[in-house]
Amino acid sequence: MEYRFSSNVQRLQSSAVRDILKLTQGKEIISFAGGLPAEELFPLDAIREAAERVFQTGKNSLQYGLTEGYLPLREQLCVRMAQKNMHVTPDEMIITTGSQQAIDLVSRILMNPGDVVLVENPTYLASLQVFGLSGLNVVPVESDKDGMIIEEAERLMKQHKPKMVYVVPTFGNPTGRVWSLERRKGLIELCQRYGVLVLEDDPYGEIKFDANANYPTLFSLDGKEGGGHVIYTSTFSKTVAPALRTGWAIGPRQVIGNMAKAKQAADLHSSTLDQQTLDQLLQHFPLNDHIRTISKAYGDRLQQMQALLTQQRWSDVKWVEPKGGMFLWLELPEGLDSEALLRAAVQKNVAFVPGASFYAADPQRNKARLNFTYTTGERMATGIARFSEALNEFLARC
Amino acid sequence: MEYRFSSNVQRLQSSAVRDILKLTQGKEIISFAGGLPAEELFPLDAIREAAERVFQTGKNSLQYGLTEGYLPLREQLCVRMAQKNMHVTPDEMIITTGSQQAIDLVSRILMNPGDVVLVENPTYLASLQVFGLSGLNVVPVESDKDGMIIEEAERLMKQHKPKMVYVVPTFGNPTGRVWSLERRKGLIELCQRYGVLVLEDDPYGEIKFDANANYPTLFSLDGKEGGGHVIYTSTFSKTVAPALRTGWAIGPRQVIGNMAKAKQAADLHSSTLDQQTLDQLLQHFPLNDHIRTISKAYGDRLQQMQALLTQQRWSDVKWVEPKGGMFLWLELPEGLDSEALLRAAVQKNVAFVPGASFYAADPQRNKARLNFTYTTGERMATGIARFSEALNEFLARC
Repeated sequence: MEYRFSSNVQRLQSSAVRDILKLTQGKEIISFAGGLPAEELFPLDAIREAAERVFQTGKNSLQYGLTEGYLPLREQLCVRMAQKNMHVTPDEMIITTGSQQAIDLVSRILMNPGDVVLVENPTYLASLQVFGLSGLNVVPVESDKDGMIIEEAERLMKQHKPKMVYVVPTFGNPTGRVWSLERRKGLIELCQRYGVLVLEDDPYGEIKFDANANYPTLFSLDGKEGGGHVIYTSTFSKTVAPALRTGWAIGPRQVIGNMAKAKQAADLHSSTLDQQTLDQLLQHFPLNDHIRTISKAYGDRLQQMQALLTQQRWSDVKWVEPKGGMFLWLELPEGLDSEALLRAAVQKNVAFVPGASFYAADPQRNKARLNFTYTTGERMATGIARFSEALNEFLARC
Repeated sequence: MEYRFSSNVQRLQSSAVRDILKLTQGKEIISFAGGLPAEELFPLDAIREAAERVFQTGKNSLQYGLTEGYLPLREQLCVRMAQKNMHVTPDEMIITTGSQQAIDLVSRILMNPGDVVLVENPTYLASLQVFGLSGLNVVPVESDKDGMIIEEAERLMKQHKPKMVYVVPTFGNPTGRVWSLERRKGLIELCQRYGVLVLEDDPYGEIKFDANANYPTLFSLDGKEGGGHVIYTSTFSKTVAPALRTGWAIGPRQVIGNMAKAKQAADLHSSTLDQQTLDQLLQHFPLNDHIRTISKAYGDRLQQMQALLTQQRWSDVKWVEPKGGMFLWLELPEGLDSEALLRAAVQKNVAFVPGASFYAADPQRNKARLNFTYTTGERMATGIARFSEALNEFLARC
């Protein structure tokens, strides 16, 4: 029979990352494409012990759970949030299947098809997909190394009356960028003035290379001024392990309540086995020490990657050194199409993500995102050598 | 600030089951309301061993996985599906967070807001919520003890040109009803004629009290006639345990492909720890024997509940004995409002679900759904005594 699909899914493109992963299946390829954390650093033994403790609590651990999430986990997460100056109670929090689901739920409860959401340009690829799935009108705001340009955000708020702004202010994906304090405060002030909600996505905030650096969340800044303008979401995918697919969102009680209603319809609840395992893990495992360990390792890997790239002595390949997160955002010479470069790179058995996919509009085709957390040591050196060879062939032709 | 929510979420009611559960929190209440499987029958040791085997495979088990789901699990599920005359390959299958998510994904990829979905009347409460969340126009089809009335379905197909029909043909929720073979074939024929997709929801099909009974799925009947008209979904929540939140859907490759695109945006993938655990469980645990054990136990519990109700010698309280599943669907005397009865019952520390919530339109207020799988033995006897006391007070007033 002939299938008629919804308008939203027809618009939805499969992600470039995904298509590349398919392209590379079965090949001995070194991939800097995926946003994968380092497997060798996963706290497997601690997770195994935590799961065992859950099983020891008995068969009740295998029953249906609350849509809002396992209460003891929410209670522990509230304590962790408070340590970052975000003060909430468990009923202002919902556990989600990764922070990805939080973005989806917020979109579904706030936005009607055609409603405007403002985003950084470029921004997280899969957020653009979520917004597409809900049929939203995604309007990009010009951004620079310090974050969204506030004057532009204000102009677009006046013009479009958006309900929501979506931002990744700390170690953004793909740029690795950190918003300045001024821009953070500026956006909050705008949102307070124009009655706009911010969805603050913070999957990478704890992966910082300077352990003493402090980047206050928008949620904490809003709290000081009256509050209620920010929904904050984060995840255990980068700090513990992705397989447990556990994220959370905090926000105004009304918003969280509606997210729970939507989640009840969408999937009833997330895996309670995973939630209880994380609850046990937080009780018995020094997670903050672990986060410092992986952050240190990722910082070292970034240094290695930068050194390998610097050796090439390119005059017109630039980047801003990220202070955390998982990605290096390369600016290639003007006129170089990074999608063509990718095709050449894959021939040499190396992959990355071309920059264009991350733009809601006006894509810059001479950008490339390289992940520096997954591939390490000799393998990283080989991968960057292959990448450099592909790039050098392009540069020779320019 | 003042929050403006989406039209869909504003329409979305919190479920009656949920509100009742809240009502009963902290009280020593005996609940026949939830659709909870029996905890004491969960194969905890087998799940624990399966999880341990997953951890033994190493740290790679904790990495991100495929949106479509863990391939070895899909391969094993294809074998299980083939045993029920449903022949698919792993790329015609997607793993979901419970079958609930399959309903959501199908709605999102097929339907635009306002599109018509036909449903049985009454039907699964949370399916009505999902359809509401996508802003669908839900049109109920008159149904009797043998399933949907085919002439009515045809009339409504001509009138509304629906894209989809949603049905639970085997041990439906709330009715426990099994569709006759004739009705099954009748619906498939209609869908083939009018180019309509069927979403066949089968969470309970394996929980049958006559082990030799055979109820062919709509998917298997369609397969014989050309195929491609049915998306079939089921779950491990009733046969293994709900905490692992793992369901699956099979269907035409194009449909499954679009479900994967939507799922990538919605939550990237479901817990791979749970999926790998289920894969190990299927390899080492005699699941079919376990399903026979729980089905036998549930059949016994149904008998106990029916005996307790029969003892009351009500002349105008009726039900059709279900041949499987988890629910008894009571018809109370005409004019008796089961929501009022629930309020009285909760005063006596017993709960059930009033029937009205399950109707897309024209609710019958004198129906009540009782779960017979969770509460057992003396506790069931006490619960039914309390329920009977509440009901007898109502009957005395009639």
